[in-house]
Amino acid sequence: MKISEIGEFGFIDAIKDDTLFNPSSVVVGIGDDGAVYKTTDGMEQVSVIDTMVENSHFIIGKTGQWYDVGYKAVASNLSDIAAMGAIPTHLVLSTAIAPSMDVQDLTDLYKGIKDICSRYGVNILGGDTVTSKEGMVITVAAFGEIEEGKAILRSTAKAGDIVAVSHTIGDSGAGLETLLQGVDGYDELKKAHRFPEPQIELGRFLVKHHCHSLNDISDGLASESNEIAKASHVRICIDKERIPLSDGVRAWAKEAGKSPWSYAFNGGEDYELVFTMSPHDFEELQKEFPAVTAIGTVVEGKGDVLVVDDGNEHVLLPTGWTHF
Amino acid sequence: MKISEIGEFGFIDAIKDDTLFNPSSVVVGIGDDGAVYKTTDGMEQVSVIDTMVENSHFIIGKTGQWYDVGYKAVASNLSDIAAMGAIPTHLVLSTAIAPSMDVQDLTDLYKGIKDICSRYGVNILGGDTVTSKEGMVITVAAFGEIEEGKAILRSTAKAGDIVAVSHTIGDSGAGLETLLQGVDGYDELKKAHRFPEPQIELGRFLVKHHCHSLNDISDGLASESNEIAKASHVRICIDKERIPLSDGVRAWAKEAGKSPWSYAFNGGEDYELVFTMSPHDFEELQKEFPAVTAIGTVVEGKGDVLVVDDGNEHVLLPTGWTHF
Repeated sequence: MKISEIGEFGFIDAIKDDTLFNPSSVVVGIGDDGAVYKTTDGMEQVSVIDTMVENSHFIIGKTGQWYDVGYKAVASNLSDIAAMGAIPTHLVLSTAIAPSMDVQDLTDLYKGIKDICSRYGVNILGGDTVTSKEGMVITVAAFGEIEEGKAILRSTAKAGDIVAVSHTIGDSGAGLETLLQGVDGYDELKKAHRFPEPQIELGRFLVKHHCHSLNDISDGLASESNEIAKASHVRICIDKERIPLSDGVRAWAKEAGKSPWSYAFNGGEDYELVFTMSPHDFEELQKEFPAVTAIGTVVEGKGDVLVVDDGNEHVLLPTGWTHF
Repeated sequence: MKISEIGEFGFIDAIKDDTLFNPSSVVVGIGDDGAVYKTTDGMEQVSVIDTMVENSHFIIGKTGQWYDVGYKAVASNLSDIAAMGAIPTHLVLSTAIAPSMDVQDLTDLYKGIKDICSRYGVNILGGDTVTSKEGMVITVAAFGEIEEGKAILRSTAKAGDIVAVSHTIGDSGAGLETLLQGVDGYDELKKAHRFPEPQIELGRFLVKHHCHSLNDISDGLASESNEIAKASHVRICIDKERIPLSDGVRAWAKEAGKSPWSYAFNGGEDYELVFTMSPHDFEELQKEFPAVTAIGTVVEGKGDVLVVDDGNEHVLLPTGWTHF
């Protein structure tokens, strides 16, 4: 059945149930002009917004299914909230859809949205649906909260800090290549691309352990580390060999004839975290969250990133790693 | 100069100034993964989201200019906030743009966004910019706040209420026709379509005067009055002759050979308010906000709308008025 056959109101009726996964803070949910919700005393609010465009950010049947698109549109926003050290609480979303879109596809999209919201206790407060002549555009605006004054910025890295990442980096970018090329296998890489895990739990540990600066890795380690260095007016030195790479990335890089590090530096949508903190605090963090890996240090500087590769230093531009 | 020449970061640098019009509540604005803001003790938060698609919601050079698109994308959200009785405070926005879009056009769009935000003291907290192969899609998510328990819903109209509207209705729909047909004159109608005024001040008066139910008129009086009737399980009776119509709508309707009421019932994007309240409270409201007009009454019922036209009663469907 096509969307045009049931109309916007029919569609809203079809998806408006099962949207509140932490109902105590919601006064008015889906169904009025706006949603109304309560905030928590002593907390500041965090807001983020992110858009995905069909055939630009995803290709249905190739890079993923409609379920994945819904999941990922939320995941990318929750990752931004994790990158402030905050706890996600609510979201609103907007979809621009072709009238010819199948109702089942849209239901699958919302299933993906609801499943990840359920997992992280995030309420779906409302949305807007408009028609688009072209492919789908989905925008999610998500909210979270954090203790007053505790948000972790990208502009507060300090000389003497350790630079670290949450898990292996580059899996999503390598996974995207295997999906686009229709290669069999590499299931872990494909999963990393289709179902990234926002690092909310780690974000909270980073608040507890006095993390100095924090970004999520949505555009590759080259871009994100440069953002921290530039915003904090420091130099970041990354030891290439210390960047954690998965066996899958190494295997696919070999098959593709590329450097495995290109996926870490230039790939995107890992939705892992890169952060800086004092060496002592990093040791304490590792006791509670052992998956983190130190990959470099912060020194005095003016906002650039160096990569140490086999004893030689190279400037790492935000656009990526080209020293192969 | 094309957007592709300056890149996303160049564009963010170009528009990130002059975005905070009530800075005391903002902890972190544009430039990090998320924005951080404070809420007010004793207030609940309101969130809304609205999307406009090029060549569906607007046609550049015909229904308006880029400046207007920015203005209106915000206005439609502030109208939703007004329709809860709340005070707008912050927004985040996302634009999907073609890389070939001219930087000046995008600057004009943001000028429209900033001008209306400045007028209503609304902070621009951040955004996302992605590329789109097709026309622009702009999504604004706006936040507001309202005293605890005071949000005015559409589901709480009561038998015995007066039904009223904020100003003349139908001007925007008539204005759209004059713009699409390239007709000279009718400047007030065109202005109503291009620069609708969100009824925030009236929304606040409605909270003060115990308004029972409230909607903004984004999809025509037929749709909005039916929404209130259905959500409140009441019957709404509208006296057709009491609906305030502007001289401009009457003149254009005559020239177009249509019923002037078709614009009020079926037109859209007026962003005026339709509301119900006790006759006594309505009298008190009129003393402070004389522009409001009573157009009907609420009686016991099961969720429908009747229009009294020349002594005869007709059912008014959400899809519009066809008894001409």
